[in-house]
Amino acid sequence: MYKVDLNSDIGESFGNYKLGFDEEIVPHITSANIACGWHAGDPTVMAHTVDIAIQNNTAIGAHPGLPDLMGFGRRRMEVSPQEVKSYVKYQLGALTAFAEAKGNKIQHVKPHGGLYNMAAEDRDLARAIAKGIYEVDKDIILVGLANSELIHMGKEVGVRVANEVFADRAYNPDGTLVSRKREGAVIHDPDLAFSRIAKMVLDGKVEAINGEEIEITADTICVHGDNPEAVEFVSKINTKLKAEGIEVAPISQIVA
Amino acid sequence: MYKVDLNSDIGESFGNYKLGFDEEIVPHITSANIACGWHAGDPTVMAHTVDIAIQNNTAIGAHPGLPDLMGFGRRRMEVSPQEVKSYVKYQLGALTAFAEAKGNKIQHVKPHGGLYNMAAEDRDLARAIAKGIYEVDKDIILVGLANSELIHMGKEVGVRVANEVFADRAYNPDGTLVSRKREGAVIHDPDLAFSRIAKMVLDGKVEAINGEEIEITADTICVHGDNPEAVEFVSKINTKLKAEGIEVAPISQIVA
Amino acid sequence: MYKVDLNSDIGESFGNYKLGFDEEIVPHITSANIACGWHAGDPTVMAHTVDIAIQNNTAIGAHPGLPDLMGFGRRRMEVSPQEVKSYVKYQLGALTAFAEAKGNKIQHVKPHGGLYNMAAEDRDLARAIAKGIYEVDKDIILVGLANSELIHMGKEVGVRVANEVFADRAYNPDGTLVSRKREGAVIHDPDLAFSRIAKMVLDGKVEAINGEEIEITADTICVHGDNPEAVEFVSKINTKLKAEGIEVAPISQIVA
Amino acid sequence: MYKVDLNSDIGESFGNYKLGFDEEIVPHITSANIACGWHAGDPTVMAHTVDIAIQNNTAIGAHPGLPDLMGFGRRRMEVSPQEVKSYVKYQLGALTAFAEAKGNKIQHVKPHGGLYNMAAEDRDLARAIAKGIYEVDKDIILVGLANSELIHMGKEVGVRVANEVFADRAYNPDGTLVSRKREGAVIHDPDLAFSRIAKMVLDGKVEAINGEEIEITADTICVHGDNPEAVEFVSKINTKLKAEGIEVAPISQIVA
Repeated sequence: MYKVDLNSDIGESFGNYKLGFDEEIVPHITSANIACGWHAGDPTVMAHTVDIAIQNNTAIGAHPGLPDLMGFGRRRMEVSPQEVKSYVKYQLGALTAFAEAKGNKIQHVKPHGGLYNMAAEDRDLARAIAKGIYEVDKDIILVGLANSELIHMGKEVGVRVANEVFADRAYNPDGTLVSRKREGAVIHDPDLAFSRIAKMVLDGKVEAINGEEIEITADTICVHGDNPEAVEFVSKINTKLKAEGIEVAPISQIVA
Repeated sequence: MYKVDLNSDIGESFGNYKLGFDEEIVPHITSANIACGWHAGDPTVMAHTVDIAIQNNTAIGAHPGLPDLMGFGRRRMEVSPQEVKSYVKYQLGALTAFAEAKGNKIQHVKPHGGLYNMAAEDRDLARAIAKGIYEVDKDIILVGLANSELIHMGKEVGVRVANEVFADRAYNPDGTLVSRKREGAVIHDPDLAFSRIAKMVLDGKVEAINGEEIEITADTICVHGDNPEAVEFVSKINTKLKAEGIEVAPISQIVA
Repeated sequence: MYKVDLNSDIGESFGNYKLGFDEEIVPHITSANIACGWHAGDPTVMAHTVDIAIQNNTAIGAHPGLPDLMGFGRRRMEVSPQEVKSYVKYQLGALTAFAEAKGNKIQHVKPHGGLYNMAAEDRDLARAIAKGIYEVDKDIILVGLANSELIHMGKEVGVRVANEVFADRAYNPDGTLVSRKREGAVIHDPDLAFSRIAKMVLDGKVEAINGEEIEITADTICVHGDNPEAVEFVSKINTKLKAEGIEVAPISQIVA
Repeated sequence: MYKVDLNSDIGESFGNYKLGFDEEIVPHITSANIACGWHAGDPTVMAHTVDIAIQNNTAIGAHPGLPDLMGFGRRRMEVSPQEVKSYVKYQLGALTAFAEAKGNKIQHVKPHGGLYNMAAEDRDLARAIAKGIYEVDKDIILVGLANSELIHMGKEVGVRVANEVFADRAYNPDGTLVSRKREGAVIHDPDLAFSRIAKMVLDGKVEAINGEEIEITADTICVHGDNPEAVEFVSKINTKLKAEGIEVAPISQIVA
């Protein structure tokens, strides 16, 4: 049977600042990427977000980012592999305390923003992230851009990996994402977004921006919960996937 | 047989800033309080500091502090018990990742600076710290000022506790520390400091600043490693304690 | 003729986090307290907020806070007068750059949150704030709780001062604000709030929480812009004050 | 008469962390680059550092950095020109408050570390820095790597510029600095360092790493004060420059 995971970034509030519709999105996803206090989130928010995930039976993942709250972790930084390995351990460990305090475990780690983008391309950073996870707990799954260096290095290091695809983003012929600065990078039509997802899961293929059909592995789909329309879209995806005979399940039930 | 632990705050460097003589002091202590990135320390420093402790067979403890790097965690802040519980979990979890990555465990938690001082007096904060530890791992020992609220609340919550005494500080008749702002608060004579320690461990007593002899439980002695003289003092204490027939051992071998 | 200023805290967004209805509230106020990057705000936000104030011909003030973004500057901290003096200079200077880059000047400084509350009661902190302002530019006005230590120390140091009153807060018989933890601390009825304001401005009196009528100086009224209802309330106050023959004008036109 | 400025980065302590030999180096330099609280420095340190500069009659400059205390501002970050312009204004304004509180002015701005390196090559960032300075105070001088984009864009924008050279660094034939990762990048021989400086000032030439002689403008020489040997080296340079008939004077007396 076909299976896919739906993941979303949550727990992005900080102190007095509220961000995201966490309570609304979590019931519709199977894996939650929880910010760990560097690019977003704080300990109070993390404790609360872990509770929301547990209440909805959604698998918990760490979403470590760069030390750049002002830039929300989106800006690339010249960090060394050694630094990145320690940054991932630190943030993973911090979230683990909140999960274990409630008798839960961390299912996965998905790097955030600039760290995710750099590690998709940079083998040394990708390997450092995978090693950081492996050294802390080798049962934790690494989520990265489908077929990117994160996936390759995760396999090399020996952690399980989950290929992530995007419902609302266009792909280059080589499987990388089209830069948001280019026209056509973001897919706004929900029906088109859904049909692309279904094809990725059922056929392992997607149409690249040049019209070419390319192969892609879709273990988990990234969805958003930062506005009510996004939440509604995820709710619909969830329903439509099931109607197509695709089971929506957490990553741990999907990757070997 | 009489036993006591020697603990010291280490891992207090940050980024480009170096602080403390960690390599020199660690061989002489049995328990290390490692900064967790809030009042001092960063992930790179934490990874390195855990390695130093392991190489010297020194037990690893978390040293969580207030979110005030500029004030080195020494300034009291109006934090709520709920916030403090989450702050302790966060920092404890972060350090745990580095310890577990090397096959080690966290022996103890000792709050730092302003957090330590507030929790010694404030029952609600003390209870919150104890609960934070208990919920993450109930085998971890809470280190607090001897006979303070931290000790009482640790017992109430159900974690093991270690009474901490100070070699170089004067005591009030009620067992609290004499404020550093008062004359006579700090004991500079190493021989006097040593004889006070020996009496605390052997007789369970110390002379308070008014000359009165008071009862005190000495499970662990706080020593410093921030200058070469301090390191030499600790080296001597270690030797002299053994000469007095007092075994120097990590907290976990001392508290029930 | 009777005159009063309406002031509001704005520019409290940070990075990816949006807070407040700045564009909506600024047209209705005469003095803007702009966050300076410590408890809220960042340089990008500050540049934009200064522009909004200038476009609306609203006087610009610095709103310095404690170094506690996670606590939004609301938590009291054990800071020394010397530290506070430097913190105020730093933040005042930072905002000044943005104002002067647009050919404008800083009209006033109003400490934020925990700093405001501590300085209202603590003579040494109040004096330090006043001195910080005086040393940077002695023409800048210090805004503080009416008749508090901030006002007294501002006068002693030699800066002009503006007594601030609150439309929506109850007063103790000694002129201090009733703690938010006590029932009746916040006045929710907009008509009552307005009539209290009018009385403060016209008669220099307000009814304290025990029913006693006390004297109060109202140079400037603190209003909020963090939700649409608040904005509408301010719009109405503005209109009603004018209907009562009270001119709404920036602080610099009110205080000697 | 030949003239050159000696500049050094100072005020890099932070909170409990001490860095640099500021008191020792300042008497030997003519322009001080003072950290502004982002990559290093805090308001207490800034106040103290401005005092040291004034006592030694050394011209005061702002040394703005990237928002990366953990990386000491050395790591490049993906910041936009608009962000950088606001970052420079913020930090320049903050330091200005301390200088003006003592009746002094800011002579120059020299970007720090990653920001300096990026702006030497990136025209848009360089222009943003120059504009930030120009908008705040067009009399302030911009210090940048000799003949780099910082110099070119400073001229285009309309601020005065000072070409900075390094006593201890090798140059590529195109006038850029040889990367520290390459062998021969750093010149350790003080006599060689001095003779290179003298040639740069007197002849406007330096031998590049490939042996080729290239043209270079030396308005100001960067020297270090982070260890006692460095301080002694600067003291000697100062003396030897005078012996060669080269006057050592602050930047404002050198650039047009």
